[in-house]
Amino acid sequence: MEQQSPDLDGVGVRHRATIAEIARAADVSRQTVSNVLNAPHRVREETRRRVEQVIADTGYRPLKSAQSLRTRRSNLLAVGFQSPGAEPSPVLDVFLHALSTSAQTLGYQILLLTAGSDGAEIQAYTEAVVDYAVDGIVLTGTHTHDERIDWLRRQRLPFVTFGRPWGALGGHSWVDVDGAAGTRAATEHLARAGHTRIAFLGWPAGSGSGDDRLQGWKQACGRAGLPTRGLLRRSANTIEDGRKTCAAVLDQPRPPTAIVCVSDALAVGAWLEMRDRGLVPGRDVALIGFDDSTTASVIGLSSVAQPLPAVADACLDALRGQLGSEGPSSGRWRQVLLQPELVLRESG
Amino acid sequence: MEQQSPDLDGVGVRHRATIAEIARAADVSRQTVSNVLNAPHRVREETRRRVEQVIADTGYRPLKSAQSLRTRRSNLLAVGFQSPGAEPSPVLDVFLHALSTSAQTLGYQILLLTAGSDGAEIQAYTEAVVDYAVDGIVLTGTHTHDERIDWLRRQRLPFVTFGRPWGALGGHSWVDVDGAAGTRAATEHLARAGHTRIAFLGWPAGSGSGDDRLQGWKQACGRAGLPTRGLLRRSANTIEDGRKTCAAVLDQPRPPTAIVCVSDALAVGAWLEMRDRGLVPGRDVALIGFDDSTTASVIGLSSVAQPLPAVADACLDALRGQLGSEGPSSGRWRQVLLQPELVLRESG
Repeated sequence: MEQQSPDLDGVGVRHRATIAEIARAADVSRQTVSNVLNAPHRVREETRRRVEQVIADTGYRPLKSAQSLRTRRSNLLAVGFQSPGAEPSPVLDVFLHALSTSAQTLGYQILLLTAGSDGAEIQAYTEAVVDYAVDGIVLTGTHTHDERIDWLRRQRLPFVTFGRPWGALGGHSWVDVDGAAGTRAATEHLARAGHTRIAFLGWPAGSGSGDDRLQGWKQACGRAGLPTRGLLRRSANTIEDGRKTCAAVLDQPRPPTAIVCVSDALAVGAWLEMRDRGLVPGRDVALIGFDDSTTASVIGLSSVAQPLPAVADACLDALRGQLGSEGPSSGRWRQVLLQPELVLRESG
Repeated sequence: MEQQSPDLDGVGVRHRATIAEIARAADVSRQTVSNVLNAPHRVREETRRRVEQVIADTGYRPLKSAQSLRTRRSNLLAVGFQSPGAEPSPVLDVFLHALSTSAQTLGYQILLLTAGSDGAEIQAYTEAVVDYAVDGIVLTGTHTHDERIDWLRRQRLPFVTFGRPWGALGGHSWVDVDGAAGTRAATEHLARAGHTRIAFLGWPAGSGSGDDRLQGWKQACGRAGLPTRGLLRRSANTIEDGRKTCAAVLDQPRPPTAIVCVSDALAVGAWLEMRDRGLVPGRDVALIGFDDSTTASVIGLSSVAQPLPAVADACLDALRGQLGSEGPSSGRWRQVLLQPELVLRESG
């Protein structure tokens, strides 16, 4: 194998320079090159000029004209994931496998980008566009005030989000699962079974999907004439938090007889807390989670299942709709809301 | 975005042709192009000639001179996964996240390849090398008579396997976890606790890691003077199979008082079978799994944990050792066997 050439001479002829190469030639970090491209105001004038000079020397105009630079498809799709901490997300893992399998069938390969923050994810997308000329991007885990979506819209790149553009303008393609319909079905099922005090263990306000699932519980309680006051607890998405919030609702003067959870992580915590108290989930207190994880099926936890292979296929459809045109345009946007399924087991 | 040009005119100047483009121009499938490159004897003479003519027309010599074609690094690493059925593997998911995160820190991106068979995986690697000029390959899930390893060795590409080259010549870099040490530790722990009949639920003979873990149980029983006869059951790796094989060992005239399993999938099945029989794992029958899954931690199942972030880092080290040289050579091979950890909970 040939050694990598330490300078940029001749690179422009056959290859486009990568961000890493530009960074090396300008003696700055990759983050700085990314900032020059994305947020030049954050970079000191002198540094910015040096980086821009290197970019000019390579005859290379990244990002602004990313699309016009392409003479053909790369058949590469980038998928961005954020894994806070070491905990993998079973939902995103199943989605990723489904996406990768379907993409390969269609002749696309998946570039997997992991990042610890929105800013780092934008940097990763920048590199994916500049270095690998990806044809499109799949963004996962949308949230309110999502700067990643703003960034993607500005680049005019084909992209789709797994998750609605919570609160933002919906001027792009997205695929999502109707979480509110899932928690509504769970709550209605419990109300039909005779429960009159149904609690909800949710996430802190501001997460789009968490707020959506909370609404489903509220709507179902409202329609059935059931109270919600004092029956909502919010926490981070860990098993330990599920234990604590379950304990909190069970310890109040008028405890609920049923609990709906925004996730299986919280529901599994609630299940453990009940077991420690000698309560049998489903007999003493009903319990329904969200995501239909392997653990849920093993411990007999009822849960709301997301149709992840269908989400993956709809994401690919949405991207291909944009790729087939002269560029992304509103006529090509697809916005798909899929229905989840309530899977009943011993607990509810 | 520009339309993809339907023919190959001019592609060779700026871009290398992809297998998909060659296939289109020659009016054959991608599989056929891959066969012409990898196994020309499988292709009809006339078809082979047509494909070779297209390849020649593009001025492109794939694979045989893949390395000499490179004028610089792509900073892309391909990772191959096989997911039989829809079941994702928690072990491989955690490994993939760790690998992707570490790779990105080092300036590499991960190309995720999923395949349903060894042959399909080789085709995916071929495309990754030809179309994306990947710098190296991480192969997961090695097994005996592994044609993927033979193929990678022939291509002289930098690669590393997560898994030992079971039975094959070990002339390449690999990283693995000492599974026998894990099941040995589990069995020794049970023997020290006074168990004298310890069963093993394993996989069918011929899977390298399954045979390895089986040996650990056998060795520990041998050293402690405990019987193994009639205490081994083999099955596929599903929860349902775990239930059945657990039932089979418990129903024999002299049932074991403890069970070690080759995986958490089988151990979780055994746990469910015990629960259905009114047996409390850990009190009535001891039970230890392998992989330390989320489900294991929730149901209190003791298990053997693999150090997956360390495996991922060692894989990257091994690849970088090869990338830093003029090419793969025996002096650059790294062969790393990491130690697992026995995590004890209520069940064992």
